Amino acid sequence: MKHTLVATVENTPSTLNRVVSLFRQRGFAIDSLAIGRTHEQHISRLTMVVDGSRTAIEQVVKQLYKIIEVRKVSDLTEDQKVERELALLKVTSKNAASRAEIMQIVDIYRARVVDVALGSLIVEVTGPTDKIDSFMGLLRGYGIKEMVRTGVVAMTRGTLSATESSRIQVVA
Amino acid sequence: MKHTLVATVENTPSTLNRVVSLFRQRGFAIDSLAIGRTHEQHISRLTMVVDGSRTAIEQVVKQLYKIIEVRKVSDLTEDQKVERELALLKVTSKNAASRAEIMQIVDIYRARVVDVALGSLIVEVTGPTDKIDSFMGLLRGYGIKEMVRTGVVAMTRGTLSATESSRIQVVA
Repeated sequence: MKHTLVATVENTPSTLNRVVSLFRQRGFAIDSLAIGRTHEQHISRLTMVVDGSRTAIEQVVKQLYKIIEVRKVSDLTEDQKVERELALLKVTSKNAASRAEIMQIVDIYRARVVDVALGSLIVEVTGPTDKIDSFMGLLRGYGIKEMVRTGVVAMTRGTLSATESSRIQVVA
Repeated sequence: MKHTLVATVENTPSTLNRVVSLFRQRGFAIDSLAIGRTHEQHISRLTMVVDGSRTAIEQVVKQLYKIIEVRKVSDLTEDQKVERELALLKVTSKNAASRAEIMQIVDIYRARVVDVALGSLIVEVTGPTDKIDSFMGLLRGYGIKEMVRTGVVAMTRGTLSATESSRIQVVA
């Protein structure tokens, strides 16, 4: 089963290495990983989507807490949450007609054209993973020259933050 | 100087570990890292923003090519490019008046409200790093309960893809 883990960590050069090594050692395939700064200085937030049983995930969370830079780990899998990913796609547009068709798909998905060249467009789209998959599926017919995805970030719905909610806290 | 590196890699459990270890060994601080799947099966794309001299970066790129799963590395630093990051922010909205003010800022930044609770909103915003920084700065006054950023992804403008353009290719 896929789990969405969120870890708040101190941003040192070795933190990411330690976290990634831990998952590697335990044989977890990381499906998606996003790391970015937060509103607090020196604090980064990692969002990982990993495949594993509940027991295996609980074990790895305990190990994560042994890394000194790790402040907090939450498993958001069973929470009401917002999950988002950003993708940029460079799509071939041979002529005005195909460009118009692409623009229509872009509108439906509330995506945005961020660059136009003679033979191609760059499109930005955000949403849950399955929305981006289906958007990509529709554009594949025109020719995708290049694509990049950020990996998923997640946040629980409602007022509590991941660090406040006791329900979502995985106790180490 | 900050460099934006894009690496196309085969997606095995150890790839990310090898790449991150390499930067760690050489003492690079990774400012931002995003890893996501592409339109090709088993191929992921890493976007890294790292600080270092041109010579140091050239060295690390050569080392990256020694990792068997690394197919291609490009330094997009001096290219015309689209750089995007996604952020989710949970902002406190004490009353209807502060919610209206927040909505106004959201409109100006072409951001989107993706969840509403009694005392807070979750807002999704995309853009270059400095745009997200300034958006965050404006909302800080209302109280940011939680924030997550994906890290930067980048793509060269125009028709060529990162793997086709010879100018942007860093020769190993």
